[in-house]
Amino acid sequence: MTPTDCVLTIGSYSDADKAALADAFGARFLVGPADIAGLDQATRDKVTAVAFKGHHPFGAAEMDLLPNLGLIANFGVGYDAIDVAAASARNVRVTNTPDVLNDDVADLAVAMLLMQGREMAQASDWARSGQWAEKGEYPLNRKVSGGRAGIVGLGRIGREIADRLAGFKMDIHYTSRREKETPGWTFHADPVSLAEAVDYLIVALVGGAETAGHVSAEVIAALGPRGVLINISRGTTVDEEALIQALSTGKLAGAGLDVFLNEPKIDPRFYDLPNVVIQPHQGSGTVETRAAMAKLQRDNIAAYTAGSALLTPVN
Amino acid sequence: MTPTDCVLTIGSYSDADKAALADAFGARFLVGPADIAGLDQATRDKVTAVAFKGHHPFGAAEMDLLPNLGLIANFGVGYDAIDVAAASARNVRVTNTPDVLNDDVADLAVAMLLMQGREMAQASDWARSGQWAEKGEYPLNRKVSGGRAGIVGLGRIGREIADRLAGFKMDIHYTSRREKETPGWTFHADPVSLAEAVDYLIVALVGGAETAGHVSAEVIAALGPRGVLINISRGTTVDEEALIQALSTGKLAGAGLDVFLNEPKIDPRFYDLPNVVIQPHQGSGTVETRAAMAKLQRDNIAAYTAGSALLTPVN
Repeated sequence: MTPTDCVLTIGSYSDADKAALADAFGARFLVGPADIAGLDQATRDKVTAVAFKGHHPFGAAEMDLLPNLGLIANFGVGYDAIDVAAASARNVRVTNTPDVLNDDVADLAVAMLLMQGREMAQASDWARSGQWAEKGEYPLNRKVSGGRAGIVGLGRIGREIADRLAGFKMDIHYTSRREKETPGWTFHADPVSLAEAVDYLIVALVGGAETAGHVSAEVIAALGPRGVLINISRGTTVDEEALIQALSTGKLAGAGLDVFLNEPKIDPRFYDLPNVVIQPHQGSGTVETRAAMAKLQRDNIAAYTAGSALLTPVN
Repeated sequence: MTPTDCVLTIGSYSDADKAALADAFGARFLVGPADIAGLDQATRDKVTAVAFKGHHPFGAAEMDLLPNLGLIANFGVGYDAIDVAAASARNVRVTNTPDVLNDDVADLAVAMLLMQGREMAQASDWARSGQWAEKGEYPLNRKVSGGRAGIVGLGRIGREIADRLAGFKMDIHYTSRREKETPGWTFHADPVSLAEAVDYLIVALVGGAETAGHVSAEVIAALGPRGVLINISRGTTVDEEALIQALSTGKLAGAGLDVFLNEPKIDPRFYDLPNVVIQPHQGSGTVETRAAMAKLQRDNIAAYTAGSALLTPVN
């Protein structure tokens, strides 16, 4: 194996990450999986590992163009763009970058909940537009502390969110594959029961086909006109059409969304909804965390090329 | 004492609060303390209690216009608009509405810290303006969890803020009149030492002459170019000119401000500073909390008129 030829890097990386990848593996850079087909056969034959970043599908067809591929090292905890079953069938290992981003994603979830509940964007506009001086105080909004929060998916990120919300004296409810050890939080077997029990529903599921549409029209209806939906997982986990309908007709109080279907070309109807906090999928988007994710991705590749155990294998 | 004549209500109240005050005390409504002089002598002579709300000064001159005044029941925890020394000298009792607003104010402090750190207003604009679709992801910002937070004034609100930030795995430092029992938080005797030790400085002091300018130019310099100032107390506690200078010249990273000098006509230079989250003094501005504050104000008046012990006396 020639280290300078074996790693193919796909996706949009920072200059620092590109330099680190090039230093470590002499990496060759492509924009997306679709560009693999543009490489000549000799180049493709040499590829044994891919450093992958992004949301464009990396499926069986792309894998078959790389006959010596042994590893897809994903940048990010969510690897729903990668067809893991197809990878396993070809003896291709997949890794991701879990845990190092939990704090940031949980921070953004709580921040969106607070910003939505306390109408901070609107209150800021009130001050900046001069209405504070002209009309007086901003209309009263809604108390957040002491509310009831429901975590859909109490995995590692969900747990971080719940721990933070407990600091706001919230009554914590959750769904999960199975009941977990918690400080007295309430387990619900299904998301409709969860949504009925809470004011804030925070989606912290993994992405992919298994969870597509998990937050269904029925769940959104159960959350109700005082309910707020927060999503930091994947746009696919929520029935977005039902969400937009509920927000448009007062059947849901509001939402805080970092993820959407068809990102970054999101449904423009979101822009016209007054009670939605929109973030551009920046959950893990801090300097510190992206550096940690990039390092974990490189460490997985280094482990693979050295024949060592992968650090964070998916399959 | 004739209940329908004895209580004078000063300030801007919600319709519900006005109705409740009128029901309980048949209250007469004025906009501000300056309007007391416009009442005729017979009316002024009847006033034994004032339900006070607002930030216009209520001093010795106004009190002397009400010769039978025995109580000023303030709506809000901060009573710096009232000259308490002048009240005490006239045997006028003062009450406020502490504790019932601690949660909301602490929520807003943490929310401003997160919104500032994760640049959520700018990131929202990035998505809504179409730059997300055109240019790609929003530039990386700064990790909040795990940072170092300094609470200036570990009173009841400061404690609520610290408890929440501990949930974000922050290293908590504080100043206070004296060292307090904490879960291992670091006490600093002076605010400069505190500011030097932290990334985020959160001001939770009482207002009034005693704390005016407490967060001085020296404290702001000690906080430094990576530092962020959060203020939910009173505009007077911070040297605002020094703050604006530091923010304008990169000597401070950012700020989150719910309170200002000369509210609501705040210094317009704040509008041009990119890294400032501005809120229109809405710390306690939720339906639930304002109702609780109004009830506590009325309960103090009722206790006074019944000759019972005041619930939350200031002097």
